[in-house]
Amino acid sequence: MKLYDYWRSSAAYRLRIVMNLKGIAYEHISVNLVTGENRSEAHLARNPLGLVPALELDDGTLLTQSMAMCEYLEEIQPAPAVLPGDAIARAQARAFCFDISGEMHPLYNLRVRKHLAEELKQSAESVDRWYAHWTSTGLAALEQTAQRLPNRGAFLFGDTPGLAEAFLVPQYYNANRFNIDVSGFTCLNAAFDTVKDLPAFKQAEPEVQPDAE
Amino acid sequence: MKLYDYWRSSAAYRLRIVMNLKGIAYEHISVNLVTGENRSEAHLARNPLGLVPALELDDGTLLTQSMAMCEYLEEIQPAPAVLPGDAIARAQARAFCFDISGEMHPLYNLRVRKHLAEELKQSAESVDRWYAHWTSTGLAALEQTAQRLPNRGAFLFGDTPGLAEAFLVPQYYNANRFNIDVSGFTCLNAAFDTVKDLPAFKQAEPEVQPDAE
Repeated sequence: MKLYDYWRSSAAYRLRIVMNLKGIAYEHISVNLVTGENRSEAHLARNPLGLVPALELDDGTLLTQSMAMCEYLEEIQPAPAVLPGDAIARAQARAFCFDISGEMHPLYNLRVRKHLAEELKQSAESVDRWYAHWTSTGLAALEQTAQRLPNRGAFLFGDTPGLAEAFLVPQYYNANRFNIDVSGFTCLNAAFDTVKDLPAFKQAEPEVQPDAE
Repeated sequence: MKLYDYWRSSAAYRLRIVMNLKGIAYEHISVNLVTGENRSEAHLARNPLGLVPALELDDGTLLTQSMAMCEYLEEIQPAPAVLPGDAIARAQARAFCFDISGEMHPLYNLRVRKHLAEELKQSAESVDRWYAHWTSTGLAALEQTAQRLPNRGAFLFGDTPGLAEAFLVPQYYNANRFNIDVSGFTCLNAAFDTVKDLPAFKQAEPEVQPDAE
């Protein structure tokens, strides 16, 4: 498989973690979001929205959207599982991921920050406040959700790391990069600390990717 | 099951369609987004993000996030299926849904429009332009995605309506409500026309909900 990737893309970071957890080898192909390579004709043919990651299967089929790719990988290679076995726990794990991928990340990703600066003429400070607002309110809600999870074990959903951690860690990377105070989020901090040094997570870190600058 | 619902919530509208398609009865409980009932202590206890819909199972378990709930309903009641049978087609159907629920809807929902007006002091015209921008660019990309789908039949993913249509129709409802020009989206328009008069879709329409104003 080929992963159309960018070191600082948090959606691509999720995929790298999941592929590492499952031990699925992939070819890394960089698509530079900062120079706008994701808006090139070649990449728009892969994903009309111009987002990364995209996953090219061996037969040339292209998949988009990090969660759809994760579900696909879970279906074609169920072990080790990255979703819980019970239907209710699985729904809660997916909801945890969507609280990140569908409520926080789309509000502050690069294309939105650019739009705020260029079209709405917002200052750098205003764009930073926007980022901090959606990240802080999102993480505060996620902390409450995490505290109420009924199946917490060593990890958020039991005894193995899974999609919840694969989505949380890139979010934490972003929060640190933008100096968001996460000190009050004890449950999320514990979840982060439990996985951050595992090889699947370490090897997915932005700074160790081939295209890191 | 109890659906914490609001007639004009497009995420709740998706759930209503899916529950109708599957023939799952539910009790409707209105949470008024305009008066801020979703920010009440009672609703924040159901969903710390203060969003609707939420689904309360018979044992009192609460599920959040429309896609997580749809996947749960598909797992506990597989027939009629709302996702395709093939893993690749299923990934493409999920990605189609996430292009709506994770890239378009979070950018323009009520809490973001309020934030733009109140915190960023944007005029009503600027908020409308924001809405139109993310809806139009999102639908244009989705049209290209739809045109390339390899398994289109009478519906987007074969011969039965499913999650792709359940996510598209509320998006079209919003686009019409805000006068977004969709005339160029031939494939999406065809997908919309094919389902809009089916009972599962008609009975989920905002205007026929008990809390419609």
